[in-house]
Amino acid sequence: MKRIAVLTTGGDAPGMNAAIRSVVRFATNNKVEVMGVFRGWWGLINEEMKLLDHRSVSGIINLGGTILKTMRCPEFETKEGQRRAFENLKKNCIEGLVVIGGNGSFRGAHEFYNRYKVPSIGIPASIDNDINGIETTIGSDTAINTALSAIDNIRDTATSMERIFVVEVMGRESGYIALQVALAGGCEDAIIPERKFDFEAICHDIVEGNIRGKISWIIIVAEGAGSAEEIAKKITQTTSLETRAVVLGHIQRGGRPTALSRTLALKLGQAAVDYLLKGEADKAVALSNGEITTVDLEVAIKKKRLEVDKLYHLIKILT
Amino acid sequence: MKRIAVLTTGGDAPGMNAAIRSVVRFATNNKVEVMGVFRGWWGLINEEMKLLDHRSVSGIINLGGTILKTMRCPEFETKEGQRRAFENLKKNCIEGLVVIGGNGSFRGAHEFYNRYKVPSIGIPASIDNDINGIETTIGSDTAINTALSAIDNIRDTATSMERIFVVEVMGRESGYIALQVALAGGCEDAIIPERKFDFEAICHDIVEGNIRGKISWIIIVAEGAGSAEEIAKKITQTTSLETRAVVLGHIQRGGRPTALSRTLALKLGQAAVDYLLKGEADKAVALSNGEITTVDLEVAIKKKRLEVDKLYHLIKILT
Amino acid sequence: MKRIAVLTTGGDAPGMNAAIRSVVRFATNNKVEVMGVFRGWWGLINEEMKLLDHRSVSGIINLGGTILKTMRCPEFETKEGQRRAFENLKKNCIEGLVVIGGNGSFRGAHEFYNRYKVPSIGIPASIDNDINGIETTIGSDTAINTALSAIDNIRDTATSMERIFVVEVMGRESGYIALQVALAGGCEDAIIPERKFDFEAICHDIVEGNIRGKISWIIIVAEGAGSAEEIAKKITQTTSLETRAVVLGHIQRGGRPTALSRTLALKLGQAAVDYLLKGEADKAVALSNGEITTVDLEVAIKKKRLEVDKLYHLIKILT
Amino acid sequence: MKRIAVLTTGGDAPGMNAAIRSVVRFATNNKVEVMGVFRGWWGLINEEMKLLDHRSVSGIINLGGTILKTMRCPEFETKEGQRRAFENLKKNCIEGLVVIGGNGSFRGAHEFYNRYKVPSIGIPASIDNDINGIETTIGSDTAINTALSAIDNIRDTATSMERIFVVEVMGRESGYIALQVALAGGCEDAIIPERKFDFEAICHDIVEGNIRGKISWIIIVAEGAGSAEEIAKKITQTTSLETRAVVLGHIQRGGRPTALSRTLALKLGQAAVDYLLKGEADKAVALSNGEITTVDLEVAIKKKRLEVDKLYHLIKILT
Repeated sequence: MKRIAVLTTGGDAPGMNAAIRSVVRFATNNKVEVMGVFRGWWGLINEEMKLLDHRSVSGIINLGGTILKTMRCPEFETKEGQRRAFENLKKNCIEGLVVIGGNGSFRGAHEFYNRYKVPSIGIPASIDNDINGIETTIGSDTAINTALSAIDNIRDTATSMERIFVVEVMGRESGYIALQVALAGGCEDAIIPERKFDFEAICHDIVEGNIRGKISWIIIVAEGAGSAEEIAKKITQTTSLETRAVVLGHIQRGGRPTALSRTLALKLGQAAVDYLLKGEADKAVALSNGEITTVDLEVAIKKKRLEVDKLYHLIKILT
Repeated sequence: MKRIAVLTTGGDAPGMNAAIRSVVRFATNNKVEVMGVFRGWWGLINEEMKLLDHRSVSGIINLGGTILKTMRCPEFETKEGQRRAFENLKKNCIEGLVVIGGNGSFRGAHEFYNRYKVPSIGIPASIDNDINGIETTIGSDTAINTALSAIDNIRDTATSMERIFVVEVMGRESGYIALQVALAGGCEDAIIPERKFDFEAICHDIVEGNIRGKISWIIIVAEGAGSAEEIAKKITQTTSLETRAVVLGHIQRGGRPTALSRTLALKLGQAAVDYLLKGEADKAVALSNGEITTVDLEVAIKKKRLEVDKLYHLIKILT
Repeated sequence: MKRIAVLTTGGDAPGMNAAIRSVVRFATNNKVEVMGVFRGWWGLINEEMKLLDHRSVSGIINLGGTILKTMRCPEFETKEGQRRAFENLKKNCIEGLVVIGGNGSFRGAHEFYNRYKVPSIGIPASIDNDINGIETTIGSDTAINTALSAIDNIRDTATSMERIFVVEVMGRESGYIALQVALAGGCEDAIIPERKFDFEAICHDIVEGNIRGKISWIIIVAEGAGSAEEIAKKITQTTSLETRAVVLGHIQRGGRPTALSRTLALKLGQAAVDYLLKGEADKAVALSNGEITTVDLEVAIKKKRLEVDKLYHLIKILT
Repeated sequence: MKRIAVLTTGGDAPGMNAAIRSVVRFATNNKVEVMGVFRGWWGLINEEMKLLDHRSVSGIINLGGTILKTMRCPEFETKEGQRRAFENLKKNCIEGLVVIGGNGSFRGAHEFYNRYKVPSIGIPASIDNDINGIETTIGSDTAINTALSAIDNIRDTATSMERIFVVEVMGRESGYIALQVALAGGCEDAIIPERKFDFEAICHDIVEGNIRGKISWIIIVAEGAGSAEEIAKKITQTTSLETRAVVLGHIQRGGRPTALSRTLALKLGQAAVDYLLKGEADKAVALSNGEITTVDLEVAIKKKRLEVDKLYHLIKILT
């Protein structure tokens, strides 16, 4: 291979820039040119790309977001869109693709590979850590720490004003962030998509605790499992205790990546290029027990099942 | 005076603990005992208090919230409530009061003084910086930096995904946080209670910018001037551009106080005790141009008028 | 078992408090009393301890340091010291020990077990991550992120002033922090105890880079591999380029623990009590590939060999 | 004026980039072109400059350091150097200068003005806050908060291990950072250039405290008043108590600017251009009691006298 392309798609995740840096530097050190494609698949279809060299990726290792930008691209889900993307790849002599992103990104890469056989390797980057077969995605450690820092702040008020808070964190289909944050934040409960939520029991705990003198509570809810606003309202109605809702929202997505998000990105960036040059395709790279490994994209795009019982139990024990 | 009391009321603000530390240490160094009252006025009415010594306030200078806790106390607005509070003061030989809090707290202190003439000095602590006659309140610098850090995170996504964001910050009656954050965050606009908001102009700017290639926007809205959710919806309807809402909420209230919030708290804590011992009453202490000064509580509880035009203009110029 | 003791020894590490919280809450939930011993072994010898209940460990999950304090205790290395410790254990009806700390702590625990057979379980907490057989210790993720944040700051000046910096990080016998930080910080080189350091090659790289226009450099040195001050001086002498030294020192030891340091601490705290109650002894608990496991203290106290070549190579490739 | 130049000189300070952004955007909005000069005076002498437009300064408001870079330039202190700088200004049709920097930068600007009468306005940026006649410089609030965060970390260990720490902060001729940090950090003492330092008294306090049970101490020393290493050694020798030294060094210089450093920079950037266009010269802009004002460079370069007694006294009272 003489030239490959790199792109970021789906929601941005902190560490994507570190991954881009690694892809570019490892490839160019191996005499392979790297074309940076802007705005994900859209840039492939619209031929928005430019060559990146060693210097292009200086000073980005500690920046959130992605210098290549990202957007949703329904056109790439059409045959015509994929055809134009393929033609632009040929036209620009691009022989392989590194796709940095989450579930949706991998689905696109897999379909595109099936149709046009352009070798592509995925790098898992998603704050939700919801990619099947992959322990940790780039960005999730950062998102958890950002959410945790917000929870620590809220705890100050919860304790000082003796209030109940319901805090909504990201996670449309996964309670991963919710559980991690609830545990690390010393929160009293977590409501997640993977587990039936016993509203009566929570209210009962709160009222019981209140009698014993425990007046401040923080309950984490994953966005996919309910609305903080509504749960807070229901708790107030049921317990007559003032309850506040906070929705952390997009602050969890950006920010300076943590050490772990960066080192993961750097290792996976190198591995992605390495596998591509070795002739691999249609796979995602991952770190498993400290070792680089791969997961077939076909597997990666399946729904991830999170083991929640042990972690949930620990949260409840430690409250 | 042999014994004074200190309490925190209203919403908690970062730096309240530093103020408590300063009150206790400066007073005890001057052979004056300090009674810490729990949960603000409620603790005075219900006689929940304990003596604080030098050691009681160790290790709290860098903690958000308030170790004395705080709560709303409608009972203190009644004659009966105030009578019980006064009797508990007499019973516990408390000859002066230091009241750490915001507008509502000062209103209570002023009324109580008018009725019972117990000397009291207020220390302005409020993240909203909305106390009349007072340049900066304890906690507002921290709240601004916390909100700013959130905006910096959101900017990563706004830039990477080329999106419009409407971010709601605290400020029910004041656009102070909104303006500071919009300026420091390089935001494109700020919607505040003090200024009529021209929705058409904002949408026009967005559409115009979009044509020139400017696709990411962050618009700050003070909670008292509108709902981020609704404004975002309206922008989408009017411009057809995807717009997201983020409500920062209670994360702005807690957290490790900044240097400025702490030094202000320490200076005002000393000053409050100093003025109380000198026989002053019914006043708030403040820092004005670097010098300690006082403001009559009667003045402090009036509505603060924020000069907004210059700052707002600067935000728009620099966009 | 009816009553166990918990203590922290050796250097403090962020997350120790979360571990204490977990030990106390999991044990008391299982009807086992927990005696908190102050200042490590010293407190056992001098009978400085007190019962901890559910409330004693509230509000500490996010604090650095250790509420139980820690100190070095040469007396515990003597037979007489250990005898007194044992007698105090008997006197206080303590049937098991949870020892939170690093290498030295585990050595003490192992010797004490050999002599008196009081069951003890170690919880690995050390910012250096230098305990044999154990992937990650409590506190090391926090220390790395703290050092990384300092490196990010230094990078601002290195880039703006186009200077060379040599930054000394913790690690007397291990280059773990140095390598992680050098990789995540995009640093140009790392000097570590595990690897012979070719001073000529570094100076050659610098001079070569300088000719190509690369003027800012950050070289990380583990304290066990050299002195930043001396290396900086030698670089200046050899290359005639201005070089600055920074020694991060104790700032790496404290601070709010990261999510990872906290969740690790909470899981290991539970596991330690669990194993103790099951009759295990003379072991450390650890997380291996996400699962709780144990390592014999005899093994844990051996010198850990860090695989450095792959990581070092990656640092150099990505520069 | 049709075209002005902007440059940063001296040590970098967080907020310099926000100042550059403000200068460029305010000037270009007023139809004045802005030439960005690289590496301070050196770039003027060597004609390293380029036009900056609205977009050139996007996304830099929250970055530490300076995108224009900075270096020391002894050549500018010579007549020949200044002559070349002047010729390059003429050649590039530059009619005015905005100089962002500290004392040394203002001295250069003042001399250059005296010789060639090119109008220049200084923007005070220096982490040391040591510019005469100017309340607060860009960057000093950030540096204080960075140092404070380090002190908070060190406090964790000081408390947990009951140790004495001597922490050296920046400030060659000024104890400003030292005093602010000592006060906000709850430190036990501060050693500064402006005040004779009674070593005996400190050791006496430590030994006395030790008897009362106070075992952890943090003493701040400004680099201009002594070496942390040596003071720590002397304390150990005199008191026989283990004492550690930490030198914060360059971590105080970089980092994300605080809200205050940014808003100050933005206001002063606008003011500098405004004054330049109004025909002012040989002055620095400043914020005094919230209002924009100017200080003659001749005054600004004189030694600033810091009032230290009140602040130092407060530190000691609150310990």
